[in-house]
Amino acid sequence: MSALDAILNDIDADLDNALERLFAFLRIPSISTDPAYAGQCREAAAWLATDLTALGFQTSVEETSLHPVVLAHKPKPGAPHVLFYGHYDVQPVDPLDLWTHPPFEPRIATGPEGHRTIVARGASDDKGQVMTFVEACRAHLAMAGELPCGVTILIEGAEESGSQGLPEWVAANRDKLGCDVVLVCDTGMWDPKTPQITSSLRGLCYFEVKVTCADRDLHSGFFGGAARNPIHVLSRIVADLHDADGRVTVPGFYDGVHERPAEVIAQWRGLGMTPETLLGPIGLKEPAGEKGRLPLELVQSRPACDVNGIWGGYTGEGTKTVIASTASAKVSFRLVDDQDPAALARSFEAFVRERVPADCSVEVVTYKGSRAISLPFDMPELTAARAALEAEWGVPAVTVGAGGSIPIVGDFKRILGKDTLLIGFGLDDDRIHSPNEKYDLTSFHKGTRSWARILSALGARG
Amino acid sequence: MSALDAILNDIDADLDNALERLFAFLRIPSISTDPAYAGQCREAAAWLATDLTALGFQTSVEETSLHPVVLAHKPKPGAPHVLFYGHYDVQPVDPLDLWTHPPFEPRIATGPEGHRTIVARGASDDKGQVMTFVEACRAHLAMAGELPCGVTILIEGAEESGSQGLPEWVAANRDKLGCDVVLVCDTGMWDPKTPQITSSLRGLCYFEVKVTCADRDLHSGFFGGAARNPIHVLSRIVADLHDADGRVTVPGFYDGVHERPAEVIAQWRGLGMTPETLLGPIGLKEPAGEKGRLPLELVQSRPACDVNGIWGGYTGEGTKTVIASTASAKVSFRLVDDQDPAALARSFEAFVRERVPADCSVEVVTYKGSRAISLPFDMPELTAARAALEAEWGVPAVTVGAGGSIPIVGDFKRILGKDTLLIGFGLDDDRIHSPNEKYDLTSFHKGTRSWARILSALGARG
Repeated sequence: MSALDAILNDIDADLDNALERLFAFLRIPSISTDPAYAGQCREAAAWLATDLTALGFQTSVEETSLHPVVLAHKPKPGAPHVLFYGHYDVQPVDPLDLWTHPPFEPRIATGPEGHRTIVARGASDDKGQVMTFVEACRAHLAMAGELPCGVTILIEGAEESGSQGLPEWVAANRDKLGCDVVLVCDTGMWDPKTPQITSSLRGLCYFEVKVTCADRDLHSGFFGGAARNPIHVLSRIVADLHDADGRVTVPGFYDGVHERPAEVIAQWRGLGMTPETLLGPIGLKEPAGEKGRLPLELVQSRPACDVNGIWGGYTGEGTKTVIASTASAKVSFRLVDDQDPAALARSFEAFVRERVPADCSVEVVTYKGSRAISLPFDMPELTAARAALEAEWGVPAVTVGAGGSIPIVGDFKRILGKDTLLIGFGLDDDRIHSPNEKYDLTSFHKGTRSWARILSALGARG
Repeated sequence: MSALDAILNDIDADLDNALERLFAFLRIPSISTDPAYAGQCREAAAWLATDLTALGFQTSVEETSLHPVVLAHKPKPGAPHVLFYGHYDVQPVDPLDLWTHPPFEPRIATGPEGHRTIVARGASDDKGQVMTFVEACRAHLAMAGELPCGVTILIEGAEESGSQGLPEWVAANRDKLGCDVVLVCDTGMWDPKTPQITSSLRGLCYFEVKVTCADRDLHSGFFGGAARNPIHVLSRIVADLHDADGRVTVPGFYDGVHERPAEVIAQWRGLGMTPETLLGPIGLKEPAGEKGRLPLELVQSRPACDVNGIWGGYTGEGTKTVIASTASAKVSFRLVDDQDPAALARSFEAFVRERVPADCSVEVVTYKGSRAISLPFDMPELTAARAALEAEWGVPAVTVGAGGSIPIVGDFKRILGKDTLLIGFGLDDDRIHSPNEKYDLTSFHKGTRSWARILSALGARG
């Protein structure tokens, strides 16, 4: 039996104890967004610090502007070093009456298909996922007496509050966070049988546009046909954002967007995501974006533009014959690859301004802009992790992008200069942020085994 | 001295008494929209009925579904018969603290240019205007013992509440309202020296459009680029409503729209309304509608389309990365001449539907549709009234359209089959519906003299 097999066997044998530890963690109602639970957040941090100290990590609980972070070190000179990130805080539990059992009394339930699940707030997001990594470390330490590589664990307590205070803390403590690669366990599987590494995240640029025409609201009977209507001006701007092929028309928008290698596209095509599988569950059939692209490309590796809100004039019941003075929209862009948020902000504002009549005015507010994140396809840690996941699950790991943005990953890249492997074992039906959140027992068990393999694989590279 | 001169002299001599009567009327707080003032509305109706009875009119106060109407008859067999319409109810007075004097304590004030004004709620809209007609009748009766033509006076008490109940009452009492022409005194002068007859009113079609794409709100990170965004669909519809020349693009929209005779256009051109005079006061410079048209044409004799409201997605502070499930707009059309609201409703709905993707849906609600009203330019009563007004004011009366819609005028046409001459003496600075409403003493005095002349002129036609 190899050393790794012994470690995996230990994980199997220790599963009940691992569940007891997870349940103790889940019983702490560490709701970060509600100040009433600040003490419980601190308690969750302390619980984790105690456990990691017992494992031999050099552990501290460090203050941020909101809830403290847990920081744990176990260096291994000469070996690669990984930084693992997760969060101990959880979402609020309302509406409480939709929970079939109290959210902070974790239990094992049997799912509709006979599989067992861990049910509690935080079971999947993110305590259960955090503990897959901790348990993997525990097994390595129990059976081998050491970890395969140096490990720093950073578990924050404000992720569900927008990671308030974390980027500042990371910037101020970058010397404590040295590593070769970052690991994050806060994402999902491709499906219950197929592991996934999220290899890219889209960036985001978010604007608010406010068009002003007349200096007051007007009676449409007296002025209709002669006075400029800001809703018309704004609608023209929005309509002009896309051409007939679904491409964004803001000049220079596609600068820095790269085509994926043919083999990546082929892999994606093989995953079988169709318009029906992507859009059917939300009541749609036809992809709306760029023509001739796979649905998976559209949401993961292609940039996009969406108006997230629009308002102006009378919006109440019945009728009012008004020509509004102003109309507003919130407009955001998802960015990929090397698209530059600053360049887009300039180009978008010019695009808007040239569509506003000379006697009207427009205000363009830039809320935020973050670049896309993407891993090099030939990154050695990515290759190693994929092999480890395939060994555990028996099928190749899917490597895809995620359409959303996870700001902390950008912060790690910006502040520490390091790439992040996003590997998680959540499933689409985990009901994170909703009542009756669950984490499949398989996710927890095989997730722990997956991390044990990944740690070995990364350590073997040293 | 002609009989008419004697009547006009009597009006001059009796001005102080006429003001006392008007003040008594103005002291009654007949606010129709506030149920607390229902008794005062009834009191105003009774006051008017008493005065008209004293003048020898056969008078009744008749119930409607809201406040009563005052109906007064003075037939003159063999002579033309006119139906005069006005309203005794007034707008609410809030914000009360902006009134320099109590709104129901009428007084004579001196305006900034030394001219005298009657200040009170209802002074201009519409008690002062109603009394110009009543005082003209009084002078005729005092000096000639009779009116030049048959007169029916209909004064309602719910105009500021959308004339609730009046169309039904008119329909049920059409046999009491027989006439050759309707006279309305609830509009304004072209300017303080130039009288005006409003010879057309635009019609109105009002719709609400609701586009639904996905069956729930979506995360724009997960779906942006692939899921249809209803704000984009709706903005395209709105943008498509006008072409680059400012013309409405709904098929068949201009069916039934007629060009005005060259001499009318020439007259309008001579009035000197420029983009600057129309739009300058509201902070704009360039007309937005159909290219190559006079500003006066655009707002009075040309149809128009305005989106009166639009909403969808996130409209609060800051950012939310949502793709909304629905987006809505309120869209109205001002109609002229023979445009058919029913045909427009069909054409607009088809226009909308063909711009909604097959996997999305749209709901089009039709709130209301009313045809435009316009007088024949060669109508004898119009010619007679213009001459009478020119005789009083020393300058030709301007004959223009009004951009807004006055539904009761359409009801008179529809139910009684009669055209309406809209002749009023209000001024743009009368602050109707606002604090410190006023009516120029000149408007009241020369307005009364104008009606005396018009009655004579119309009677002479018999």
